[in-house]
Amino acid sequence: MGLDAFCVVLVAPLYAGNVGAVCRAMANMGVSDLRLVAPRVDDWTDAERMACHARPLLEARQVCDSLAEAVGDCVAAVGTTVRGGLYRQHVRSPREWAPELIQRSTDGKVALVFGREDHGLSNDEIAICTHLVRIPTDAAYPSLNLAQAALICLYELFLVGGDFVPTMEKSDAARLDRRERMTAMWRELLLNAGFMDNENADHMMQGIRRIFTRGAWSIDDVNILMGVARQCAWAQAQARSGSGDL
Amino acid sequence: MGLDAFCVVLVAPLYAGNVGAVCRAMANMGVSDLRLVAPRVDDWTDAERMACHARPLLEARQVCDSLAEAVGDCVAAVGTTVRGGLYRQHVRSPREWAPELIQRSTDGKVALVFGREDHGLSNDEIAICTHLVRIPTDAAYPSLNLAQAALICLYELFLVGGDFVPTMEKSDAARLDRRERMTAMWRELLLNAGFMDNENADHMMQGIRRIFTRGAWSIDDVNILMGVARQCAWAQAQARSGSGDL
Repeated sequence: MGLDAFCVVLVAPLYAGNVGAVCRAMANMGVSDLRLVAPRVDDWTDAERMACHARPLLEARQVCDSLAEAVGDCVAAVGTTVRGGLYRQHVRSPREWAPELIQRSTDGKVALVFGREDHGLSNDEIAICTHLVRIPTDAAYPSLNLAQAALICLYELFLVGGDFVPTMEKSDAARLDRRERMTAMWRELLLNAGFMDNENADHMMQGIRRIFTRGAWSIDDVNILMGVARQCAWAQAQARSGSGDL
Repeated sequence: MGLDAFCVVLVAPLYAGNVGAVCRAMANMGVSDLRLVAPRVDDWTDAERMACHARPLLEARQVCDSLAEAVGDCVAAVGTTVRGGLYRQHVRSPREWAPELIQRSTDGKVALVFGREDHGLSNDEIAICTHLVRIPTDAAYPSLNLAQAALICLYELFLVGGDFVPTMEKSDAARLDRRERMTAMWRELLLNAGFMDNENADHMMQGIRRIFTRGAWSIDDVNILMGVARQCAWAQAQARSGSGDL
């Protein structure tokens, strides 16, 4: 599925670098349709630099005269705002909207609309939007950079509707019987090495067990610690027979 | 609570603009402790520009010679990687790690460690990290800009442990009895206006009801639509008595 049905609309962006950074964020999250409303950019050098490998997307941008024109073919337009206040009170966070927006995107294009770096979206532009989103931030500094705001919205959509294959552990989780065998090997090793004696072994092994049970260990992890115990036991035996040879 | 116990460590950052953008993202999410390991930046102008209102945080940065030194006082260090592979397989997403990291931050400082723009973190640096994180992205372009990566990690932590007051509806949700009264007013209005007659009123009102029940309406919303019905009924009555006066 992916986010093919989403587009990003930047209203009158001022800084080329921001437009480029938005392109990269779009490519990172699998969105490719960029629309600019009356951009105020003269020199596009910074846009190309910040877009990095997302330049094709920057070059394919569509330029419109008004927001109404830019979102005309969409079934929903999501406006971003940092302000509350009249007509802006029914805002939700990107995470709250994401499932609904992914659903809407099965009916047609959905636009994510971002306002000017200096003045945001006007009330007329807000009125065109069908959804309003506000990104959770610290109250002391709620204004995100344009590309940062775009990334958060795209990222939340991507986590619901995008194609992501998480990194898997190469080794399966270890079963408890294997972990018990490993613990028994360590008990014998630590007794033989004089790290503890029969009197305090139970107590000491509680500490070792606490260390051994902190994480979700894989078979590989357990094998490594068995190997350590085996090798140390062998080295001790060698040393003992060596000293016996004296 | 907030994210006071978190710090951000940038290993050998190359572009001043990125460092500044990281500062802004930190301030947006309520984190203020920035540490740089052997920065390769000569001219800090772009850093100040991109930091915007987060400049105090940029100026208070701590500079270290090595990652080990930078995270020495921390109880956990979270390394970011886009690669899988040997020693990097036990990575999780920022959302998966966030609750545990917030928990760890009650024991002491927790570092978010970000690698070089050009080469990421070395294997030696990865080895120092207690947690590894990989940000979910589209497979076609998995490499995020440095400040974008920092933002995602900070944002996920902020949503678990930060202080955020969501925008509230000014008006409570409307009760169904109030919505029924409103619907009855509209039924009468639309009958009197000739929009429908007694024969097809039930059918037409189904369409109106479908529109009226799509959203989670507030008391204010219902009051507005009652006001519309009341005012239109009044205008019709006026017009009727007016025409009667002819």
